[in-house]
Amino acid sequence: MSILGIALFFFMKASYQHSYFFAAFLLILLACEPPSKEPVTSTPEEKPSLPSWQEGSSKSSILDFVAKTTDPQNPDFIPEAERIAVFDNDGTLWGEQPFYYQLAYAIDYVKKEGPNHPEWGKSPVLKSAMEGDLKGILSKGEHGIIEVVMASHSGMTEDQFKSNVKEWLNSSKHPETGRPYNQMIYQPMLELLEYLRANGYKTFIVSGGGIDFLRVWAEEAYGIPPYQVMGSSIKAKYEEVDGEMQIVKIPELNFIDDKAGKPVGIHQQIGMKPVIAVGNSDGDFEMIQYATEAGGPRLGIYIHHTDSVREYAYDSLSSIGNLKRGLIEAPTRGWVVVDMAKDWSTIYPN
Amino acid sequence: MSILGIALFFFMKASYQHSYFFAAFLLILLACEPPSKEPVTSTPEEKPSLPSWQEGSSKSSILDFVAKTTDPQNPDFIPEAERIAVFDNDGTLWGEQPFYYQLAYAIDYVKKEGPNHPEWGKSPVLKSAMEGDLKGILSKGEHGIIEVVMASHSGMTEDQFKSNVKEWLNSSKHPETGRPYNQMIYQPMLELLEYLRANGYKTFIVSGGGIDFLRVWAEEAYGIPPYQVMGSSIKAKYEEVDGEMQIVKIPELNFIDDKAGKPVGIHQQIGMKPVIAVGNSDGDFEMIQYATEAGGPRLGIYIHHTDSVREYAYDSLSSIGNLKRGLIEAPTRGWVVVDMAKDWSTIYPN
Repeated sequence: MSILGIALFFFMKASYQHSYFFAAFLLILLACEPPSKEPVTSTPEEKPSLPSWQEGSSKSSILDFVAKTTDPQNPDFIPEAERIAVFDNDGTLWGEQPFYYQLAYAIDYVKKEGPNHPEWGKSPVLKSAMEGDLKGILSKGEHGIIEVVMASHSGMTEDQFKSNVKEWLNSSKHPETGRPYNQMIYQPMLELLEYLRANGYKTFIVSGGGIDFLRVWAEEAYGIPPYQVMGSSIKAKYEEVDGEMQIVKIPELNFIDDKAGKPVGIHQQIGMKPVIAVGNSDGDFEMIQYATEAGGPRLGIYIHHTDSVREYAYDSLSSIGNLKRGLIEAPTRGWVVVDMAKDWSTIYPN
Repeated sequence: MSILGIALFFFMKASYQHSYFFAAFLLILLACEPPSKEPVTSTPEEKPSLPSWQEGSSKSSILDFVAKTTDPQNPDFIPEAERIAVFDNDGTLWGEQPFYYQLAYAIDYVKKEGPNHPEWGKSPVLKSAMEGDLKGILSKGEHGIIEVVMASHSGMTEDQFKSNVKEWLNSSKHPETGRPYNQMIYQPMLELLEYLRANGYKTFIVSGGGIDFLRVWAEEAYGIPPYQVMGSSIKAKYEEVDGEMQIVKIPELNFIDDKAGKPVGIHQQIGMKPVIAVGNSDGDFEMIQYATEAGGPRLGIYIHHTDSVREYAYDSLSSIGNLKRGLIEAPTRGWVVVDMAKDWSTIYPN
């Protein structure tokens, strides 16, 4: 699959004019060397929390923040109703290499459904997708990707889409680890979500990826119900299908939940400023900024992909999950930068 | 204030081409006589629930539905994660006569802020609003209303808007009852919300009104947090204001959460089909239809305004909260029609 990575990388350099779905999927291309960040002060374990997190400043920053914001005697106490924690998904809660799993879904869907859609054969992009020719799709740039996404995500009812995604999750595996995609989630993050909820925090996903795709499996994987999942979306209509009124997904962009779109999406859907924000790329910068500049005790966290052995190592040079500005500004902004290789004793759940 | 009602009524007949905010605020004009509905079978009180609901079929339908869907031994049992209940707001959870309270807010705001906005004097509509001349606003039709709403709901940060609404709620009163607007909520509905939550239902508001306006006071009034409030919305931007990054509300429509927009909004924001849906007008028809046609045990409820003494009596002839199709189809669809005069022992909280 490394050819894909290379193809994507060159593709990124070639053509990005508008941003649209491209932004939601791939856009983020900058360059610089990452600082490496993880003080090694060890802190005595206060609770049996976050077992897959190594002792160190990342873990203790999280534990200390939660302890003070949940202690009514502490001046930094935050009432439970205001304890909102937001998490990016791709690269933060689950993997995103060698390329976004939702794009893998889109291509697999077009490949599989091609025979039922003779009209797709007229499109060079969809023809490439049906032949499994990723380079052919990417050669059309952003428009190629949008076309594959739209073909696989619209023109069906919400129920059909859900069942398509479920079927795919049950039948496909990550090309490098061989794990089902919904087991490409990070064990330490599952523990963090659980720990925050146990301390009265409401956990939300604010993803650049597609909201409906995510909602199919987020509750089982993360314990986050559909109504606490935000993401990019296409439009929908309520109309009659086979004699029944149904929600039908239509091939038109509704909202791109990336970069400055993340604070806007949080405003529109959550309606409160988050107390904790966690991301892994510059697409999450504005979200973490919005949360941490809101005043009062705030916690911003970047997950830094530093583990080339157990996962992947990438940041400012990567076309996917590009992280440059975040690494530069995190120290002065007081944001925690989690070093996956050093801070996590496990990557995936058993 | 009855002049307002008449003015609104004639205005409604005169001009509605596009639907936009008009739809969110006023559109719904049909005509027919309402059937009157309330069997008087009395049911023995099973729990000390819904104390302001008179014994009768409305109350027993609700109690029976909740009992069976929360009993693991019952074939109609619904797992807690799927127990979603959606409520319209205007006319369902609080009043909406003699005209939508959010429009009262908009006019009061323009009146009060006029002196700080000399540019408003150039607009005949805003000049009318500043002079408290409702007829002047309405004479411009839908555009007049949109102009007043936009002037009062945009061009400010989310924090400024919140504090404006709070100030208004603290300083203004309903013209007929003299109650603060946030006490124009219905006691029996507060009990229903509480009862559903006590039985594992998640309660959501799906309002045709403005989402941000509602979120300011919904948690205190109804116990419903901002992220469980859906409604119509204008667009927002994340940008620098006075040296700080802020969410700024901009004068452009984002989403109209009315009629077929309600199922779409539920799909986009909740991502699950509701089990219980409650409304009071034909603007809620599609929402209740979407919920009750989803299969499995479902409960649709219409609140019928029948109480001209303690509240207001209106339905198919009213320009506000018009209810015609709902009354006609409720019996065959098995939806409960609550008769406010007979089913509720109290209207407002003490």
